[in-house]
Amino acid sequence: MKISSLLLLAASVVGSSAPAFAQFAKAEDAVKYRKNALFVMQQNFGRVAAMASGKAPFDAKVAAESAATADFVGKLPWVAFGEGTDKGDTRAKPEIWKEPAKFKEYADKMQLEMSKLSVAAKTGNLDNIKTAVSATGGTCKSCHDDFRKD
Amino acid sequence: MKISSLLLLAASVVGSSAPAFAQFAKAEDAVKYRKNALFVMQQNFGRVAAMASGKAPFDAKVAAESAATADFVGKLPWVAFGEGTDKGDTRAKPEIWKEPAKFKEYADKMQLEMSKLSVAAKTGNLDNIKTAVSATGGTCKSCHDDFRKD
Repeated sequence: MKISSLLLLAASVVGSSAPAFAQFAKAEDAVKYRKNALFVMQQNFGRVAAMASGKAPFDAKVAAESAATADFVGKLPWVAFGEGTDKGDTRAKPEIWKEPAKFKEYADKMQLEMSKLSVAAKTGNLDNIKTAVSATGGTCKSCHDDFRKD
Repeated sequence: MKISSLLLLAASVVGSSAPAFAQFAKAEDAVKYRKNALFVMQQNFGRVAAMASGKAPFDAKVAAESAATADFVGKLPWVAFGEGTDKGDTRAKPEIWKEPAKFKEYADKMQLEMSKLSVAAKTGNLDNIKTAVSATGGTCKSCHDDFRKD
């Protein structure tokens, strides 16, 4: 084994033993980051959902912009659920770290449905949007039911 | 004047007399939205700035992703500074609503420099990134100096 390979291996071991929230200065930042990103996502999704349910007048341009924003921002929270971020000002259940594969499956499903909502909103067709809002909202609910405290 | 034009005019008048935070359910949501978006932006910008200053090892892929996220999310807070959102849990100075043109100029300048940072980060060249981080950081500081309470 060459020295350069050994150094690469050492670097990768050091990398993987660093705290999983290493890209955040502290665990509290990770908790705040995921909550903040989820709030920004929810506000944008909620605006589209209000149009879908008839609680707000349908505005195709605003719906498309809001869905695109929810799609983008909905991809951000997941890096911030690393080890050591299960404490503090959070409603995250311990199950997130006990069943990481299931949690990831839920998170992936939400992101997929939110992307489909963004595509639907770009069509400007309210029926398409209603279908996608319903599917996306279902993924929010199932994850909250299993992984978020009341 | 045709009836349709009158209706359009009426709709636009109604629109402009609605509260400026109308896309938020309440003023507190607008305040929370802009703070949350700015925190997500700052965390991503800060990661790139740490690489530029040598406080964190340079990772071109992470830098490009983080700068792109900061660029996108940095466009979100500004709709949430409408009338009636000057109160509550906020460090926003009253000057924001007294000098809206100046505030908008600062906000636009920040978004421009953040977009340039995202372009610079895509080049993978650390010197380009350093220059752009410095310019972007300057726009954060000048706006905080004039429009944010300590």
